Amino acid sequence: MIRVGIVGGTGYTGAELLRLLACHPKARVEIITSRGDAGRRVDSLYPNLRGFIDLEFSEPELKALLQCDVVFFATPHGVAQSMMKALYDGGARVIDLSADFRIRDIAVWEKWYGQAHACPELVNEAVYGLPEHNREKIKRAQLVACPGCYPTSVQLALMPALKAGLVDPTTLIANSASGISGAGRSAKVGFLMAENYDSFKPYGVSGHRHLPEIEQGLRDMQNADADAAKITFVPHLLPTIRGILSTVYARLNKSVSGDQVQAIYSDYYRDEIFVDVLERGLYPETRFVRGSNMCRLGVEVPQGGDVLVLMSAIDNLAKGASAQAVQNMNLMFGVDEDSGLHFPPALP
Amino acid sequence: MIRVGIVGGTGYTGAELLRLLACHPKARVEIITSRGDAGRRVDSLYPNLRGFIDLEFSEPELKALLQCDVVFFATPHGVAQSMMKALYDGGARVIDLSADFRIRDIAVWEKWYGQAHACPELVNEAVYGLPEHNREKIKRAQLVACPGCYPTSVQLALMPALKAGLVDPTTLIANSASGISGAGRSAKVGFLMAENYDSFKPYGVSGHRHLPEIEQGLRDMQNADADAAKITFVPHLLPTIRGILSTVYARLNKSVSGDQVQAIYSDYYRDEIFVDVLERGLYPETRFVRGSNMCRLGVEVPQGGDVLVLMSAIDNLAKGASAQAVQNMNLMFGVDEDSGLHFPPALP
Amino acid sequence: MIRVGIVGGTGYTGAELLRLLACHPKARVEIITSRGDAGRRVDSLYPNLRGFIDLEFSEPELKALLQCDVVFFATPHGVAQSMMKALYDGGARVIDLSADFRIRDIAVWEKWYGQAHACPELVNEAVYGLPEHNREKIKRAQLVACPGCYPTSVQLALMPALKAGLVDPTTLIANSASGISGAGRSAKVGFLMAENYDSFKPYGVSGHRHLPEIEQGLRDMQNADADAAKITFVPHLLPTIRGILSTVYARLNKSVSGDQVQAIYSDYYRDEIFVDVLERGLYPETRFVRGSNMCRLGVEVPQGGDVLVLMSAIDNLAKGASAQAVQNMNLMFGVDEDSGLHFPPALP
Amino acid sequence: MIRVGIVGGTGYTGAELLRLLACHPKARVEIITSRGDAGRRVDSLYPNLRGFIDLEFSEPELKALLQCDVVFFATPHGVAQSMMKALYDGGARVIDLSADFRIRDIAVWEKWYGQAHACPELVNEAVYGLPEHNREKIKRAQLVACPGCYPTSVQLALMPALKAGLVDPTTLIANSASGISGAGRSAKVGFLMAENYDSFKPYGVSGHRHLPEIEQGLRDMQNADADAAKITFVPHLLPTIRGILSTVYARLNKSVSGDQVQAIYSDYYRDEIFVDVLERGLYPETRFVRGSNMCRLGVEVPQGGDVLVLMSAIDNLAKGASAQAVQNMNLMFGVDEDSGLHFPPALP
Repeated sequence: MIRVGIVGGTGYTGAELLRLLACHPKARVEIITSRGDAGRRVDSLYPNLRGFIDLEFSEPELKALLQCDVVFFATPHGVAQSMMKALYDGGARVIDLSADFRIRDIAVWEKWYGQAHACPELVNEAVYGLPEHNREKIKRAQLVACPGCYPTSVQLALMPALKAGLVDPTTLIANSASGISGAGRSAKVGFLMAENYDSFKPYGVSGHRHLPEIEQGLRDMQNADADAAKITFVPHLLPTIRGILSTVYARLNKSVSGDQVQAIYSDYYRDEIFVDVLERGLYPETRFVRGSNMCRLGVEVPQGGDVLVLMSAIDNLAKGASAQAVQNMNLMFGVDEDSGLHFPPALP
Repeated sequence: MIRVGIVGGTGYTGAELLRLLACHPKARVEIITSRGDAGRRVDSLYPNLRGFIDLEFSEPELKALLQCDVVFFATPHGVAQSMMKALYDGGARVIDLSADFRIRDIAVWEKWYGQAHACPELVNEAVYGLPEHNREKIKRAQLVACPGCYPTSVQLALMPALKAGLVDPTTLIANSASGISGAGRSAKVGFLMAENYDSFKPYGVSGHRHLPEIEQGLRDMQNADADAAKITFVPHLLPTIRGILSTVYARLNKSVSGDQVQAIYSDYYRDEIFVDVLERGLYPETRFVRGSNMCRLGVEVPQGGDVLVLMSAIDNLAKGASAQAVQNMNLMFGVDEDSGLHFPPALP
Repeated sequence: MIRVGIVGGTGYTGAELLRLLACHPKARVEIITSRGDAGRRVDSLYPNLRGFIDLEFSEPELKALLQCDVVFFATPHGVAQSMMKALYDGGARVIDLSADFRIRDIAVWEKWYGQAHACPELVNEAVYGLPEHNREKIKRAQLVACPGCYPTSVQLALMPALKAGLVDPTTLIANSASGISGAGRSAKVGFLMAENYDSFKPYGVSGHRHLPEIEQGLRDMQNADADAAKITFVPHLLPTIRGILSTVYARLNKSVSGDQVQAIYSDYYRDEIFVDVLERGLYPETRFVRGSNMCRLGVEVPQGGDVLVLMSAIDNLAKGASAQAVQNMNLMFGVDEDSGLHFPPALP
Repeated sequence: MIRVGIVGGTGYTGAELLRLLACHPKARVEIITSRGDAGRRVDSLYPNLRGFIDLEFSEPELKALLQCDVVFFATPHGVAQSMMKALYDGGARVIDLSADFRIRDIAVWEKWYGQAHACPELVNEAVYGLPEHNREKIKRAQLVACPGCYPTSVQLALMPALKAGLVDPTTLIANSASGISGAGRSAKVGFLMAENYDSFKPYGVSGHRHLPEIEQGLRDMQNADADAAKITFVPHLLPTIRGILSTVYARLNKSVSGDQVQAIYSDYYRDEIFVDVLERGLYPETRFVRGSNMCRLGVEVPQGGDVLVLMSAIDNLAKGASAQAVQNMNLMFGVDEDSGLHFPPALP
């Protein structure tokens, strides 16, 4: 059994890790930390876990974490980087769900996150944990930086088109919408039920932290001779808890039909367990992936024109965070890639 | 492997059976029927099942069904009774999720369901499939009539109090609220999103079909010398898809404290896998059971008075229908009672 | 024009007052205070009011408030009582939406609200602002204590039955459900969208602050010789913003039919503008009153038994708070009772 | 008083017309027709209108309609065109909320709506009822074709940019999301609560009927020398009843800052009652316009780049249908443009 430690277990990505690992056949959570709730039973905070997780939150302690086979960080940005050096040097394998090690350009990270990076020396050791792009590197990684939720949805949508050189990479547009759990479990007026139910809004239009991450990821996917990807990214807040739908627009480089794009996409993702290209004419809905690690994609070329529309649905807490983190763990430890993740979404 | 046939797979209880059985370690769905959608791939109707269920809907055929180890009916009332005699005589073990065999008094059934019963001779062969009450009978049953969703939630709430003689059984009140999936997948104006979102309403107040079923079940649970249970049952429609919360009121026969009731309930359900009595002062929420076979209960004696308040949360499609049906199958076939059902609800 | 001052305008009842008064033909808001947001434009906090309210929040100042014809308190409990003496002695007419002056028994108030009352000498000057019960007193009142949201819904449901002596007043049960705006605009984890959407729960079961207010109100309505009303009150939290539905259960004193109860209720409320008894067989839904001052009622005697079921729908922010406050103002100032309140709910 | 007839009153746009006209100071609904519900009281179908609309649905009769001052069509496409000739020749002034007279190119209409046009001779008599573009023509019109909901939101967003020549009109993208009431009150599985709650999806991606209408409208707004507007339009279905948010992307023709665009937009709509350009840095939310005739706009130039992002929020049943129809009526009959429409949205 893979012995798991989780730093920062009171937030939603922590809770989702616990839900998924509770039934993982090859892993067992041994430590889950929380400074604020140390001593409290986990299942008193998350009663859905009653009977599945028999642990209390504990103070994060380096020594105990080093006895785990893998340490997950399910913390706000800034936390993982403050503990990483000691863990890394102690030999821990680490999967960081936060943004701390996603962006290789330290200056860019510091600009968008508004603070100095506390562990720049390990940023280039981190492998960006998008298995569909980096599977082999992830297997050998000591430190995996899990992608953000929006970046996962946008990058999976665009990867085949970029690799195939189908689209002009400088005019990309990603119109994304997320359920509110992406904002985390923090007590702010802006996230109240009374402020969000029965409404829909854009936010972060002038610039969102996931923008540089998306662009870095897209550029990593591009062919060597391509113009560097440039994207306009506008996130929106859905009146739901979970789910991201990204509708991505790109100008076609050449005249291709929807059927041809469909064939390229189906072929590209044929062997992926967790990316499902829907059949021609079908488009993804967030309920098609609710609670699961699936990314479901649809493609269209409206009116036979020169704009490619890509649609990508994930569960922001699952493929967009904790389930993808488990997928990464599975790769790192050589167990089946879908261990603990093999179940369909609940629908309706 | 238990070979499973499902009659009527296009509705929500059929879809939920498929979701659960897709990951069941000891069962495999071999047939799923639908007159209206015969020939259509199941996963084109329910894309959440892509990659999990590789079947087409087929016309219901007796011969094929008889080759299964167990046949589920996930049909509106009236269908199971029309096919039951032939299946039963052919030796099939049957789990009926519909109302056809739940009520032993044929006249009562016919009054509430507004039609003649087509198979009265087998009504008394049917075992009412509430495992917490009928476990041993279910194990040996050839025909199990799965309880309705509301009856499951109300009966589990009241069973310990009735057995312990805590309450006056003639003045029971069940105020229940259900998500709209309980109404099924039928195209009626009254079930449209635009008619139900952002609203809440009572319905069936003058009399609901689950009323006689609830009362029959409660009476089965009572001690021999008790007055026959009589309940006022008012269902409400929640603006959600899943979830039932029943708030049950009963007049205490004797002066007992909330702590005493808590002890009685905890003790009564101590060995049940799927009934969880929350700790004192905690009350169930439908999200605590979303998608799972759990029933979570809370008890209270407000202001130390003479009214007992019992609160019961289930997922109407899971413990209220399909997951409980799988639990029954597990009992009938001698596999672990939680086979295919051992996972926590997703929260948030 | 009635010159209006509002103390505490950043919460939801304040916002609702502004929405309603913005179109009131006989009143104009001149002052709206907020300690935390003084100097901020009201419509930057509530953009729905752009073009309708051209004011900034200001610090509460006694002198300015005394120049208004009426002062509303849309504050948490404790605030109105701290300013009331000065306003009252200064001759202000005051409409308090908070709980400060609702309960006549100071000890009871102090027990439930957990603090000493800062202005006990004016508690008995306050008129309980339920127009359907206290219309004439309200007209002459200097200080009106507006009822709570749950108490409004439950009292309007029970008033005719109590007056007619139809029911045993000692065995009342009110099962109520409210949208989350009732919890106010405070940043607490428990009120986050991610904690409440797609769920339903009871709360405050062991005792809720509205319980003593409901009982006091019911007792005020009873005939002189009746046993004192006693109620079990269980509130629930709906996954919506607005709306309260109370389902009230009472044991009938005599054998009456649903038709007879219907006639009594229709007759009782015949002349009320804001209480609407639905036709026989129809039950209220919260969407039938969304955004309006209406209370819609339904009655039923299930199965011709001895339990009366009363159903009452209001908008908790409207008839349950701010619109009823405006109705009270209209009465106090002798303008049409429905001034500023004469519009139908939006449906769907 | 303007005497109003409404053809097709059982759908949501009919209900919304009734809600708005119920309080209109200068208009009174005299006739409301429905073939299916003739003889039924309007308020039995829409209980929110109890006390406001004292009418029964009637069969549509030419003679009676001709006695009204204005006739609204709140019908599916195909109905208005079948009755229009007789009404028009009889001198009726008509406001058609359906798509029948929106598109001037008959062949285009017939292609997208899949049927022959029954009244092509009047198509060019119809004035497209977007007051912010066609105010003077509307005043004099006998027949007004009200814009569709999506077209209203997209056209109002783009009009100032097109008029100012800010953007390349051939690369427009409109990513729109609507509440489900836009689908109307028809009993289809796809519009059930259980199929749409807690989910989000694109639809009509390959081509939606509002596409040609949007393009026609945009071209009407363009300067004479501009390249013809061409737009990629992808609608999405929000899990709400009301509200449209369109996020529109356009490539800037010249280097302008967000502040400059803001100034152009604020200036352009300065005198419009029902278009509100939010302050710099604020973006519209559908709750900011809920139930009202307002369109609220936001503008942004992300990262100072060359893409203009325009955000537009309307209530699809109000500014997107019935309230805009009333605005048109006000213009046609010379009453205040905001008669019956002067109230703020309810928020929260």
